[in-house]
Amino acid sequence: MERITVVKIGGHVIDDPAALARFQRDFAALPGAKILVHGGGKLATRLAERLELKVELVEGRRITDKGTLDVVTMVYAGLVNKQLVAGLQAAGCNALGLSGADGNIVLAGRRPPQPVDYGFVGDIVRVDSELLRRLLDAGLTPVFSAIMHDGAGTLLNCNADSVASALATALARIAPTDLIYCFEKRGVLGDPDDERSLIREITPVGYAALRTQGVIRGGMIPKVENALKAVEQGVRSVSIRRADRLLADDGTTIRNSQLSTPD
Amino acid sequence: MERITVVKIGGHVIDDPAALARFQRDFAALPGAKILVHGGGKLATRLAERLELKVELVEGRRITDKGTLDVVTMVYAGLVNKQLVAGLQAAGCNALGLSGADGNIVLAGRRPPQPVDYGFVGDIVRVDSELLRRLLDAGLTPVFSAIMHDGAGTLLNCNADSVASALATALARIAPTDLIYCFEKRGVLGDPDDERSLIREITPVGYAALRTQGVIRGGMIPKVENALKAVEQGVRSVSIRRADRLLADDGTTIRNSQLSTPD
Repeated sequence: MERITVVKIGGHVIDDPAALARFQRDFAALPGAKILVHGGGKLATRLAERLELKVELVEGRRITDKGTLDVVTMVYAGLVNKQLVAGLQAAGCNALGLSGADGNIVLAGRRPPQPVDYGFVGDIVRVDSELLRRLLDAGLTPVFSAIMHDGAGTLLNCNADSVASALATALARIAPTDLIYCFEKRGVLGDPDDERSLIREITPVGYAALRTQGVIRGGMIPKVENALKAVEQGVRSVSIRRADRLLADDGTTIRNSQLSTPD
Repeated sequence: MERITVVKIGGHVIDDPAALARFQRDFAALPGAKILVHGGGKLATRLAERLELKVELVEGRRITDKGTLDVVTMVYAGLVNKQLVAGLQAAGCNALGLSGADGNIVLAGRRPPQPVDYGFVGDIVRVDSELLRRLLDAGLTPVFSAIMHDGAGTLLNCNADSVASALATALARIAPTDLIYCFEKRGVLGDPDDERSLIREITPVGYAALRTQGVIRGGMIPKVENALKAVEQGVRSVSIRRADRLLADDGTTIRNSQLSTPD
């Protein structure tokens, strides 16, 4: 394999039919072996509300009790995943929807209940890159929801950004791998209200300074730190860009200085 | 491949946690290449009720409007499929959950709206037996919900018995294939109230007589006719038996007289 691209999309794409249709066309046109990881959008929250399940968030993270686990499994691994797969098939991309339990491809461990018990929430333990390689070699495009399993029969809700980063890190052992996080904004901005203030490249040293200056803050901190960790562990590049700029050479890029740059 | 077994389970297994746990252990122990097809149980109906969707049945078949399609996709392709896969993984079976859209493995066509418009309901058009073979060769056990797609981006709800029969018929070209329908009763009974009146074997000629006599009636007619058609099209044997007798040589068997019997 010459290269592998892992793309992650979030709710802002999934909740917007026009944006989703465009994304599916662009993703189908992306050359080479590729993998898609998706979040769930607002549908899980709306369904939980209609079922009168309590949605509890701690530090922006959903507390996943059994009822909520069932809802996110239905919405993420069921409706959103299968609609995405059917849409990509129609766009000419041979998509294959997966949870971590399918083929035991991603094993997760339940997060310790201290200091906060997030319920059925997991962190990734192991990725079967050999099976992923076989699927990619067969011309298939894996499409992952963030529902994983613990190997003992329990499904676990994981963070989709972390799933994308774990997959890219595991695949980097097989072929040069680039990771793209699709985001609402153009990338990391010097001024959050000005898309022209895009920071095109972030290095580990540059990150420390940007964080100290308060340029990188809030939800952007874990995203950039995830990206820095991924390139440290062998991913060739991580890019943060708008979903509608998937095929453009745009956004903020974090590069592995030891590896050659993507074509 | 020496042989392939296709097993279909319905709601009576999925809705009963003890029966499901036993079935998962037995299915994991079934030797050789195998595929599982599952229905959805009462959960889809209960969820549709809680969402106040109208559930309309014509001749025992659900009318699938867009809201109902979303519910069955969530429940069948999401919750039930992923719970089954995670349970089988825990039982040592390398299960891979699939809808027809995944890998474009089963293509369906929307049923014509005359004489009854069933909505988003499909009939199977084509099975990619080559991709199925590759998955089986990789040691994977496909687990199918009955959610298929039309190749143009639309998901379609299919009949799980027909999915099992179409998969077995396609696989029969690759290796000797046996199909097992798990059922509430021991098989086709001479007297519906007496499990000891099991009819062990049905032939095409025998079927005509049993139907004339009224021994085979109601929901059993399409089941046995599906079975007769499957053996006519190359499936080695079709067995109708209780889910808790999966590993036993029990139930009613319809055999292809031109092919050798299973070991």
